[in-house]
Amino acid sequence: MVMVKMVEDGKASAEIQAIFDDIKTVRKTTWVNNFWKVLASSPATLTRIWSNVKQVMAPGALDPLTKEMIYVAVSTTNNCEYCIHSHTASARAKGMTDEMYAELMAVVGLANETNRLANGYQMPVDEQFKPQF
Amino acid sequence: MVMVKMVEDGKASAEIQAIFDDIKTVRKTTWVNNFWKVLASSPATLTRIWSNVKQVMAPGALDPLTKEMIYVAVSTTNNCEYCIHSHTASARAKGMTDEMYAELMAVVGLANETNRLANGYQMPVDEQFKPQF
Amino acid sequence: MVMVKMVEDGKASAEIQAIFDDIKTVRKTTWVNNFWKVLASSPATLTRIWSNVKQVMAPGALDPLTKEMIYVAVSTTNNCEYCIHSHTASARAKGMTDEMYAELMAVVGLANETNRLANGYQMPVDEQFKPQF
Amino acid sequence: MVMVKMVEDGKASAEIQAIFDDIKTVRKTTWVNNFWKVLASSPATLTRIWSNVKQVMAPGALDPLTKEMIYVAVSTTNNCEYCIHSHTASARAKGMTDEMYAELMAVVGLANETNRLANGYQMPVDEQFKPQF
Amino acid sequence: MVMVKMVEDGKASAEIQAIFDDIKTVRKTTWVNNFWKVLASSPATLTRIWSNVKQVMAPGALDPLTKEMIYVAVSTTNNCEYCIHSHTASARAKGMTDEMYAELMAVVGLANETNRLANGYQMPVDEQFKPQF
Amino acid sequence: MVMVKMVEDGKASAEIQAIFDDIKTVRKTTWVNNFWKVLASSPATLTRIWSNVKQVMAPGALDPLTKEMIYVAVSTTNNCEYCIHSHTASARAKGMTDEMYAELMAVVGLANETNRLANGYQMPVDEQFKPQF
Repeated sequence: MVMVKMVEDGKASAEIQAIFDDIKTVRKTTWVNNFWKVLASSPATLTRIWSNVKQVMAPGALDPLTKEMIYVAVSTTNNCEYCIHSHTASARAKGMTDEMYAELMAVVGLANETNRLANGYQMPVDEQFKPQF
Repeated sequence: MVMVKMVEDGKASAEIQAIFDDIKTVRKTTWVNNFWKVLASSPATLTRIWSNVKQVMAPGALDPLTKEMIYVAVSTTNNCEYCIHSHTASARAKGMTDEMYAELMAVVGLANETNRLANGYQMPVDEQFKPQF
Repeated sequence: MVMVKMVEDGKASAEIQAIFDDIKTVRKTTWVNNFWKVLASSPATLTRIWSNVKQVMAPGALDPLTKEMIYVAVSTTNNCEYCIHSHTASARAKGMTDEMYAELMAVVGLANETNRLANGYQMPVDEQFKPQF
Repeated sequence: MVMVKMVEDGKASAEIQAIFDDIKTVRKTTWVNNFWKVLASSPATLTRIWSNVKQVMAPGALDPLTKEMIYVAVSTTNNCEYCIHSHTASARAKGMTDEMYAELMAVVGLANETNRLANGYQMPVDEQFKPQF
Repeated sequence: MVMVKMVEDGKASAEIQAIFDDIKTVRKTTWVNNFWKVLASSPATLTRIWSNVKQVMAPGALDPLTKEMIYVAVSTTNNCEYCIHSHTASARAKGMTDEMYAELMAVVGLANETNRLANGYQMPVDEQFKPQF
Repeated sequence: MVMVKMVEDGKASAEIQAIFDDIKTVRKTTWVNNFWKVLASSPATLTRIWSNVKQVMAPGALDPLTKEMIYVAVSTTNNCEYCIHSHTASARAKGMTDEMYAELMAVVGLANETNRLANGYQMPVDEQFKPQF
């Protein structure tokens, strides 16, 4: 059960509503999802996190779909139910097919397995993998 | 310090050497990295994990570079030193630029932050994010 | 769904009821929360964990509210729904304001982000940070 | 081994040096720690993360020492060697005594234990703990 | 809410039904649990994971009950609700008593605590614990 | 680098030396490992944790070797280098063979993989797995 009272879109203070409106504009949507309505319980956090998300998730050297799939990989590893749902939906909206999703899950699963084999056996890093400057 | 004696390439049993040779062939390299030399302490595990990696990391609906970056995202979240090094090196070899790497790290970091905000505040999943069948 | 039958306050064996009564006395409450009713399925575990909690969470060099906020920080990082709820409620009862809660969440979120940046980039510890004896 | 070339204080571009100088000013120190020298490999990340840290770690409803101890709690739970060292050093510098440190570690350890007991037994959240709005 | 449409036993393609039938035969059961019905959304993943589970969970140097308890230990540490339920049920079916379950939970809880004490204090590995070859 | 000064066996206060001596007696060894020498920086923590370990790791419904392997499973999942080394050494001393160790690692790896598949796909718990009271 959510820990704070959510601030509803259209019933927010001017400061918060401005962020809500920017979210809708940048994302070309007509609604604000719960993540932001909850963060709005703290205007400083809402403003800061939206600024971060807007910058980090913008198209850059990586395309937006790749970024969403990386987000799903992290959220799955951490078991964040909200983030699994929201970022899988975003990835789907950006073009992730059933085949891509199945492969994403397969890589995430396998990486979690081999991470523990490497840690459990205390594998030493090969010299060839060490960065050269 | 590694927990088992590593099996060296060229000094392995026929069964293990065949896997080592297949790894080099599939990956078009001339050496075998420590991950496999350690797993070779258990032929059943070596055979099984190589079979999984070969299948999951092959080109498919996702390209090999995207798969490597997803691997780095998971390994960073789990703090697997060996896997961070090996898969970052693989991603570099497959074309990951400095800019792509910086964005990969930024997304991984931010996802780990927002995962905890979503969990800490116990955010409810929006109806709009729930899959429809 | 809970994995064992909970033992209800007032319907417990003498050994368990004595712990339940001590919990209520120490915490100045009139009820026993589910955490203890579940652990009561194993009297040895109930006794041991209550002894630990009573010792560790008592006022000391750190005040009880600070201890509860540290508990929330860990529980959020690990995604323990029960513990997030119970320790946030305890922190609230001990005086955590909305502003303190928002800052707690902000620090927890940011720490989870920078932990992964430090691990992902494999940052070397500065000599200046190493303890001196 | 660090994954990117660190940018040294005094040998940075104007944009990066301005951040380095601000870090030293805000923190009243004469040196820049590795965390920032590594992030400087990506000016966008350096700028963004410093802005976040400056805002989140500033004195507010929680005092700076409490914030540092929360940081140590998260970093210990996640096993971030760099962050454990840097934030323990910061907490010490802000007045954390040996007794406070021992209690911090004790709470972090116990919380990690009871988190798993709560999750392993799938304990249901008590109605009394659910937030009321 | 499950992310993909589950494939029902008896309504599957020949390829998938063959795996479902093998699961029932190997496990001597008359039904297929949701784990496999979900993975069946990707025949390649279903085939691969079943092959892994069949090999790894077979009786060997460790008996099946010990393997199930190890599975519960990992699933509890990672907070996987599905796996906690499914592998606790499997362990119960293989003979885990109430006393064994209570001790399993106690070890898992304590290990999670001491893991953080060891990491938080950055304890150095004793020479005596390092493997000798 | 260890965060506190270790207390050496033979140079401890009477209170701490009594714990050290009990550790050696119970474990039938002639030396005290670093875990306890570090915890001795806080006599209250040393006393409390030793009491817990002595109780939880004693032979009971589960034999000591099984308990050590569960400890390794958790420590590997959490990536605790100290605990991986110390509990693998303990399991070896209690009779864990190379074959048992290989299977332990295989189960831990696979459980970490399927945990993420279950969480990533948000698999619903089967009614048949829910405990009946």
